Amino acid sequence: MRDIIRFENIYVNGGSSVVGKTEAKGPLARYFDLCEEDEYFGKDSWEKAESEMTRRTLEKLFAKAHISPEDLDLICGGDLLNQCVASSFGVKEFGVPFLGLYGACSTFAEAVICASMFIKGGGAGRVAVCASSHFCSAEKQYRFPLEYGGQRTPTAQNTVTGCGALLLSGEPSDIRVADAMTGRIVDAGITDANNMGAAMAKAAADTLTRYFESSGMKPSDFDIVATGDLGREGYEICTELLKDSLPGLTDKYTDCGMLIYDLEKQDVHCGGSGCGCSAVVTAAYFLDKLTKGDASNVLLLSTGALMNPNTVLQGQSICGIAHAVHFERGTK
Amino acid sequence: MRDIIRFENIYVNGGSSVVGKTEAKGPLARYFDLCEEDEYFGKDSWEKAESEMTRRTLEKLFAKAHISPEDLDLICGGDLLNQCVASSFGVKEFGVPFLGLYGACSTFAEAVICASMFIKGGGAGRVAVCASSHFCSAEKQYRFPLEYGGQRTPTAQNTVTGCGALLLSGEPSDIRVADAMTGRIVDAGITDANNMGAAMAKAAADTLTRYFESSGMKPSDFDIVATGDLGREGYEICTELLKDSLPGLTDKYTDCGMLIYDLEKQDVHCGGSGCGCSAVVTAAYFLDKLTKGDASNVLLLSTGALMNPNTVLQGQSICGIAHAVHFERGTK
Repeated sequence: MRDIIRFENIYVNGGSSVVGKTEAKGPLARYFDLCEEDEYFGKDSWEKAESEMTRRTLEKLFAKAHISPEDLDLICGGDLLNQCVASSFGVKEFGVPFLGLYGACSTFAEAVICASMFIKGGGAGRVAVCASSHFCSAEKQYRFPLEYGGQRTPTAQNTVTGCGALLLSGEPSDIRVADAMTGRIVDAGITDANNMGAAMAKAAADTLTRYFESSGMKPSDFDIVATGDLGREGYEICTELLKDSLPGLTDKYTDCGMLIYDLEKQDVHCGGSGCGCSAVVTAAYFLDKLTKGDASNVLLLSTGALMNPNTVLQGQSICGIAHAVHFERGTK
Repeated sequence: MRDIIRFENIYVNGGSSVVGKTEAKGPLARYFDLCEEDEYFGKDSWEKAESEMTRRTLEKLFAKAHISPEDLDLICGGDLLNQCVASSFGVKEFGVPFLGLYGACSTFAEAVICASMFIKGGGAGRVAVCASSHFCSAEKQYRFPLEYGGQRTPTAQNTVTGCGALLLSGEPSDIRVADAMTGRIVDAGITDANNMGAAMAKAAADTLTRYFESSGMKPSDFDIVATGDLGREGYEICTELLKDSLPGLTDKYTDCGMLIYDLEKQDVHCGGSGCGCSAVVTAAYFLDKLTKGDASNVLLLSTGALMNPNTVLQGQSICGIAHAVHFERGTK
């Protein structure tokens, strides 16, 4: 039994998103709740900035949903910083039970799945999910000091500064979490840390294949099928991998990392990446489309690259994982 | 609703544990499945060693339970390495859907709770949970190069080299996951990275207080109440914090970090720590007691310190979190 997980009564009761200045110059700017020009978010380090971004995103979620932290049973969240400190320091003041998750950039979908399972299983009534990344804290941790001004290769991506959050519960709304599928770790043999898209594309294709086999649905049943942050390179690989087995996919298929920036005008190489990428695109853009009825079925595959700088230096390949969540407008 | 989560039909179908040489000299040595003398586990780095330890632990679990990876629906696991690479590289060859978790040293109980929720909610039939830590990879990452030979302060603890795993499903066995409670992040204001016990003790006390309030049970209903890795210092603080509000606790209360080593004879200061600590003590020692009927009710509180070296250097306090799981012998 590794089928899709079907949910009957899990609803999205709200979403919020906070992003940085590069995202504010992208094509989705008007959908975000807050675009912060200061990359420090008023703090004295990028790590604290990311926690503050998470805190503000949840505060915004609570305000939009007219709830207080006391009304929440659980927060599920994660980020890219070592030991997931952006999330834990970002949520601590709320005093809500917390489950820390790490799925690299697949964390947002992983959080939605875990939260939905807790609600379905009676382990929580109302759950907030969140995932974040910050360009500066990620560059510093994974690559080079920003001051170094290192050049990036053509396949590199730009870590999204952003945190996205959703409020989930059993209280009916127009949008529900219809079903989901947890991903497997797939090793495509990629060792180039500047080509995460290629490292994750095979994992995305694996989950997409399993999802459509198990669900009995077709790509044409969806308005949008979106990977999390494959970027242009990974998007093309994923498309190529599935062109024969999933006909019609390309008509519906997009990638959050390509949606969030203008790849022609912004200096972001292959597009956006990071936990925050699929989180803010979902919590802002997809949620808007679902709310307004411009889309009825959205399949999100947040994609993660499982590695750290040590594993790359030690010659290990970068594995990928992709978790799928189906958001549906209208209740069954 | 932040009550305890009650489970009806979640059973423990097996456990396995692999440890290192210091643990093999401790009082619980005979309970572990494998004690590896080579701290590299036959690999060429400590990080790869930790992944190999995780791989062997799961392989042992499968062998003991007479299953193959194909029989599993999900693995829930995590560790202390940056981006949880010990777990992801350790489980990748099995090809099983994977949920990466990060709760610092509370990860083992977090994994048991998540796995139980997935089984209860119909999201998985059979789930393996695992958590690991490795003395050398942890010292290198969190403190000093081992070659430096840094002295440790009296309140310091010794990171357990060990990985513990459990197999959970709805298939009846003598031991079940009876109920659980997710923890909140508690900031006790501790900034000394060599005193994790103190940093986590208040979080353990918080979850214990909430657990007994919500469940209607008393400490005397349990044979063992065990925190994960508070060590002697944290154990004493937790005992002091609860001596008036939870009478009878001290008769039942112990700590995995104090059980795993001989604190008088082994040079481990305040005791064991790390994700692997509560994982191996539970999967080996507590499981043995429950299986043989020497204990009928065990309450495990895996305890985590939420920090990384950067947050400490940036002056942030070390927050704690504790997740509780109640293992019960005999079905209701």
